[in-house]
Amino acid sequence: MPSVPVPPEVDRFLREPNPAVMGSLRSGGGPHTVATWYDWEDGRVLISLDDSRLRLGFIRRDPRVSLTVLSEDDWYRHVSLIGEVEELRPDEGLADIDRLSVRYRGRPYANRTSPRTSAWVRVDRWHGWYGSRPVREGDALVG
Amino acid sequence: MPSVPVPPEVDRFLREPNPAVMGSLRSGGGPHTVATWYDWEDGRVLISLDDSRLRLGFIRRDPRVSLTVLSEDDWYRHVSLIGEVEELRPDEGLADIDRLSVRYRGRPYANRTSPRTSAWVRVDRWHGWYGSRPVREGDALVG
Repeated sequence: MPSVPVPPEVDRFLREPNPAVMGSLRSGGGPHTVATWYDWEDGRVLISLDDSRLRLGFIRRDPRVSLTVLSEDDWYRHVSLIGEVEELRPDEGLADIDRLSVRYRGRPYANRTSPRTSAWVRVDRWHGWYGSRPVREGDALVG
Repeated sequence: MPSVPVPPEVDRFLREPNPAVMGSLRSGGGPHTVATWYDWEDGRVLISLDDSRLRLGFIRRDPRVSLTVLSEDDWYRHVSLIGEVEELRPDEGLADIDRLSVRYRGRPYANRTSPRTSAWVRVDRWHGWYGSRPVREGDALVG
């Protein structure tokens, strides 16, 4: 798997509000996956977690995560990222979940009562598929 | 997370050729995720792996996997499965990858030269989301 930084076409792809699935490690060390919103900024991934989610305990225990991002137009185009949560902080005022909600839904997040935590993931490696072959320079991942 | 068997609406959903992301464990124990075809039969998941894929080594080393299946119509409907690979066998004659290719693409698999291995995953637990809440009995996950 190639190291970061990702090439420009992958960067452009990750900026789109694509469907994504996050992988983390359960208490016993087995894999856990679930669909998630994310944002991408300067080589880091932002994830927002409701404080009641098991997943928050998983990443506090072991910060290693992965993220597979699918193209909404054609899920045979996808990019996966591997990294570690390097920052966990309370989402004061729900600014981060609002940022994600506006990105994906065009409006602030509806639930204003449940506390949330924001996770910033440092990405170390990536790999991408364009149909049946790995992503190459110049592939139009977006659109 | 509920135990198996999955309820009828989840079973119906898993039978559809939905986009999916498989989680497994890398050599160091960190999570790995990648988009994949799958099939669902009698509470087990079929995955097909090209023999050159790193992922095959991962699941030989540790059979614990997860799978998140997204609705193609609306990825806010999704079901995740947790289980273990209980059977790995060479895909003689490429029957299993053809089965998956016909399911997803309506035609046999194009590449007839690369050897492949089939993995059958026993599913132990599942969870599902229907928009912003867990899946409930009677939810129309399909269509």
